Amino acid sequence: MKILKGGITAVPGILAAGMATGIKKTNAPDLALIVSECEARAAGVLTRNKVVAAPILLARERLRRGKARAILVNSGNANACTGRQGYDDAVEMAALAAKALGVSAKDVLVGSTGVIGKHLPMDRIRAGVPILARNLRREGGEDAARAIMTTDTTLKMAAVEDTIGGHPVTLGGIAKGSGMIHPHMATMLAYLATDAKVSHAVLQRGLREATERSFNRIPVDGDTSTNDMVLCLANGLAGNRPIAKDGADARRFQALLDQVCSELAKAIARDGEGATKFVELVVRGARTTAEALRVANTVATSSLVKTAWFGEDANWGRIMAAIGRTGVRIIEDRIGIAYGDAAVVRRGLGLGQAAEEHANAVLKRREFTLTVDLGLGHATATVWTTDLTTDYVKINASYRS
Amino acid sequence: MKILKGGITAVPGILAAGMATGIKKTNAPDLALIVSECEARAAGVLTRNKVVAAPILLARERLRRGKARAILVNSGNANACTGRQGYDDAVEMAALAAKALGVSAKDVLVGSTGVIGKHLPMDRIRAGVPILARNLRREGGEDAARAIMTTDTTLKMAAVEDTIGGHPVTLGGIAKGSGMIHPHMATMLAYLATDAKVSHAVLQRGLREATERSFNRIPVDGDTSTNDMVLCLANGLAGNRPIAKDGADARRFQALLDQVCSELAKAIARDGEGATKFVELVVRGARTTAEALRVANTVATSSLVKTAWFGEDANWGRIMAAIGRTGVRIIEDRIGIAYGDAAVVRRGLGLGQAAEEHANAVLKRREFTLTVDLGLGHATATVWTTDLTTDYVKINASYRS
Repeated sequence: MKILKGGITAVPGILAAGMATGIKKTNAPDLALIVSECEARAAGVLTRNKVVAAPILLARERLRRGKARAILVNSGNANACTGRQGYDDAVEMAALAAKALGVSAKDVLVGSTGVIGKHLPMDRIRAGVPILARNLRREGGEDAARAIMTTDTTLKMAAVEDTIGGHPVTLGGIAKGSGMIHPHMATMLAYLATDAKVSHAVLQRGLREATERSFNRIPVDGDTSTNDMVLCLANGLAGNRPIAKDGADARRFQALLDQVCSELAKAIARDGEGATKFVELVVRGARTTAEALRVANTVATSSLVKTAWFGEDANWGRIMAAIGRTGVRIIEDRIGIAYGDAAVVRRGLGLGQAAEEHANAVLKRREFTLTVDLGLGHATATVWTTDLTTDYVKINASYRS
Repeated sequence: MKILKGGITAVPGILAAGMATGIKKTNAPDLALIVSECEARAAGVLTRNKVVAAPILLARERLRRGKARAILVNSGNANACTGRQGYDDAVEMAALAAKALGVSAKDVLVGSTGVIGKHLPMDRIRAGVPILARNLRREGGEDAARAIMTTDTTLKMAAVEDTIGGHPVTLGGIAKGSGMIHPHMATMLAYLATDAKVSHAVLQRGLREATERSFNRIPVDGDTSTNDMVLCLANGLAGNRPIAKDGADARRFQALLDQVCSELAKAIARDGEGATKFVELVVRGARTTAEALRVANTVATSSLVKTAWFGEDANWGRIMAAIGRTGVRIIEDRIGIAYGDAAVVRRGLGLGQAAEEHANAVLKRREFTLTVDLGLGHATATVWTTDLTTDYVKINASYRS
């Protein structure tokens, strides 16, 4: 597997563009268009929140057809809790893009992110879409990535290439998200594309699995969103033999999906609102993966654990307390905890002052690993998260004002 | 029912004392002793965390006997994750108090709160207990309340009186807690006493019910502790006919327990670390109480909702998103949301700018009510919580240093 520069437009046959239309007060870019030059298979993973934005409702319907040509995404307004008019606005967004591109409206998906409960300023979108369509280009992935950002401080793009059945196959993507990130998809958008020839079933199942191991492993603050979506277009231009399930080709294709999704997910976690620490949290020695994940997510969303990271304090008592309240049947005197290679707890007991000082040195780094060993079995789970900081509170207290 | 001044020593036959022994670096009071002049029934509700401190292990054993004479509590050190020596230290604490008081060691319960993973400085406790025992007095409740505080900024005491079967009956208590508060008991201690004559079964069941409706309704940050306990001594000095279950006397006694527990719980919520807002969150229109509670706890522990309160911003979209991720089957277009009497959402849709400005005015108050109506049934639940502030992060980032 080769890591490529660029994002979604590293993929042959994929064009993109982004622009500022004035949906955001700041006049930052706020509308992105991604297009496949030929018809593509389309798969998606959508938020599990029971309050869902209009673009999610539309995507649920249109993804059933298993194909698409274009994705139009705005930032600055979530088009959520906007009722019938919000749904009509999402339909119109797709129609506007379809008209500008000369494709069927059913082949256009839409996405939105931003403030909940306000109607979209459709006049800006109506004015913007024809311009966007004219600006589509093979180098437009970065503009598109920029136009879907909200509180993000970094661009999020990834692309890889591998040989599948003798043909070079490319997969790339862009994403946005920096807070409100949690298992089960939370205010994050990711758009992927590939030139692989792949059935809808393999694409859909592969995207779901990749999402489970990436975007669903970045619990930042426990909140999930009304708008989260991961979409992937596959236009088949690589000319490979169609990828059937469970073969060697499928495994190589899955590795591409996993790589791009986990790179994007880690970029989102690194960009956690106000974060000063990026933490890879590994739980091992669990009886089952589900139990390992439950422990990992509880530790990773504990306000007390996360503020201790901000304070660069190996306060392992808070980790023990978080492990204890997951509901997982643990055995206290089998638990081990280490920051990087500095063990602080063995058999449920602290290892003393020198061990903690060693760990405190690890916590001074910008990125570190926290390992929790439950000592019960062989299952493991890894999640990525950040600290909870005074800046997180400031950003989220003032986000709308 | 009459509200009395004072706390646990408002109850006839209850003596208390508190002092500084040097367990805390700050030289603030850190050891409290509560004693009943005669044998008392004893009931307790203990943390559900699976990592439990030594005093909890001891209380589990001793509460089976259903009676006790004294409670010795230290702050500054949790005696949790301290292994066999920690357990032996808890046993010794009880023995020290028993010796000083001339009672059986089995009749003494102990409690601890503070940093996890450090052994107790037993020399300080050995020196302190005899002095504490000499200082026991009828006015000592406040000293005891002060000696169990950690990051608390306010003393927490409550006491009430009512007539049961023609006899005046008193019930009082003290508590500590200001952060890490969550359903299922989190780093909070509460010690209650009453002169009611009551069976162990009625006392235990009543205390559990009162805890469920009070201390388990103050979700501040989602964390629970290894050390939480609520204990109640009943010394029978009121001379009432023993309270049997399910009668009018039991209901009046339950009202006393409910009143003191909810006053103490609200005092803990009000004292949330760094909090600037105290919020009474009412969920109604739920199908079941369990579903109402689940929605209430999810909204009350959402970092995004809580930072919006800190920002005095009626950002109801975050409340909708929290309601949507509870797993409770909701119907989006039946949801109503109001701050105080300012409705901001009706039938799942925002009510516009004027309504939000009205709500923003409510959010400027120090205390307000948030009502979520699910529109599905007749069940309700109320919880008390606070905002998430920059000071919360500062306090918890630096707690050990």
